[in-house]
Amino acid sequence: MQAADPAVRDLFGAMAYGQLVAFSQLAGEARKAPTLREGLALSRLAASELANAELLLQRLEELGFAPEEAMEPFVGPVDAFHERTAPADWAESLVKAYVGEGIAVDFFREISAYVDADSRELVQRVATGTARTEFVVGAVRAAIDRDPRLAGRLALWGRRLMGEALNQAQRVAADRDALASLLVGDGLRPGADLVEVSRMLTRITEAHTRRMDALGLAP
Amino acid sequence: MQAADPAVRDLFGAMAYGQLVAFSQLAGEARKAPTLREGLALSRLAASELANAELLLQRLEELGFAPEEAMEPFVGPVDAFHERTAPADWAESLVKAYVGEGIAVDFFREISAYVDADSRELVQRVATGTARTEFVVGAVRAAIDRDPRLAGRLALWGRRLMGEALNQAQRVAADRDALASLLVGDGLRPGADLVEVSRMLTRITEAHTRRMDALGLAP
Repeated sequence: MQAADPAVRDLFGAMAYGQLVAFSQLAGEARKAPTLREGLALSRLAASELANAELLLQRLEELGFAPEEAMEPFVGPVDAFHERTAPADWAESLVKAYVGEGIAVDFFREISAYVDADSRELVQRVATGTARTEFVVGAVRAAIDRDPRLAGRLALWGRRLMGEALNQAQRVAADRDALASLLVGDGLRPGADLVEVSRMLTRITEAHTRRMDALGLAP
Repeated sequence: MQAADPAVRDLFGAMAYGQLVAFSQLAGEARKAPTLREGLALSRLAASELANAELLLQRLEELGFAPEEAMEPFVGPVDAFHERTAPADWAESLVKAYVGEGIAVDFFREISAYVDADSRELVQRVATGTARTEFVVGAVRAAIDRDPRLAGRLALWGRRLMGEALNQAQRVAADRDALASLLVGDGLRPGADLVEVSRMLTRITEAHTRRMDALGLAP
């Protein structure tokens, strides 16, 4: 009964809604870009989020799940994340695009280790479609070169993004049994043990640190 | 020397920038949708605007024009249009998506009658990619059914969109000789005569009236 796995519904629903909101948020911020070139780059990144969401929504339908119903439980946590991390300026928008997207991708990729092979393959495909964030690295480094005081504020901002992402992930884990069962197990699945969960969080934190480093920011 | 026609550069630059901003604006408003389904529909409409802009930017490059430079002169008028027509709520967003997009498409299609065949063909292709606005008709009619008082406000809103579009079109015509020469002629082109310009405005106004009618709004 893989096709009707509620954990897959939750995983795809959470990812799809997250990408839909990222699309809307990044596209909206593209208008604040200091140059047309940067605005276009962020617009393209936004469009790739929607394209990824479409793949997940299509798969949800193929699996017999209503896409809107699958996304609905994640509206609260995802919206809360964005309300608490509204970028104050263009540099914060860029860091959020890069760091926020990176955390989300890492997290979903880790989770996908516990679902069936077809679902995992789709998560991997969607997750690697985000190489477009690379332009952000150069843009953030250039902004810090122009105004070195930015580095301190953006470093704090990166930590805040990570903190809020973990907050909302915990909220989801508490509310969504099917999704949580992937990690902690239930009558039907072994799940990961606590050591493995702890290792997973370490891997996600390390990847975050590498991204902050790439941006020239203290993690 | 069709390939280096500055009127084509202006036409494509204006359209592309208009679509880039429409992408950003519509995508940003998708988050305010009352349902996930409507938000997704508006997101898809937004994405089609970016896809159309990409076609124009690519053609500009093929013609030897720098895309950013071609768009730059239209930043002022397009941004001014959007600043003056910021939707107050979801119903206004929908009407703007449908009516604003319709006016822009009609206008650029009319102008394209005066450029070379390849450029005209591209404008037609980009202009017909907007059938996605059709979902708006049902959504606006449903909103008016729920709250009939909306009809009066939205009718005024539609008139204001048309008025602001004409204002900014006049501003562009006054500032951009190459584009204006398509209509009024110069040493190299005959242009349209005044009778034809007047007919063109009548056609655009009539199409606007039909769209308002489709939405159930007094024009």
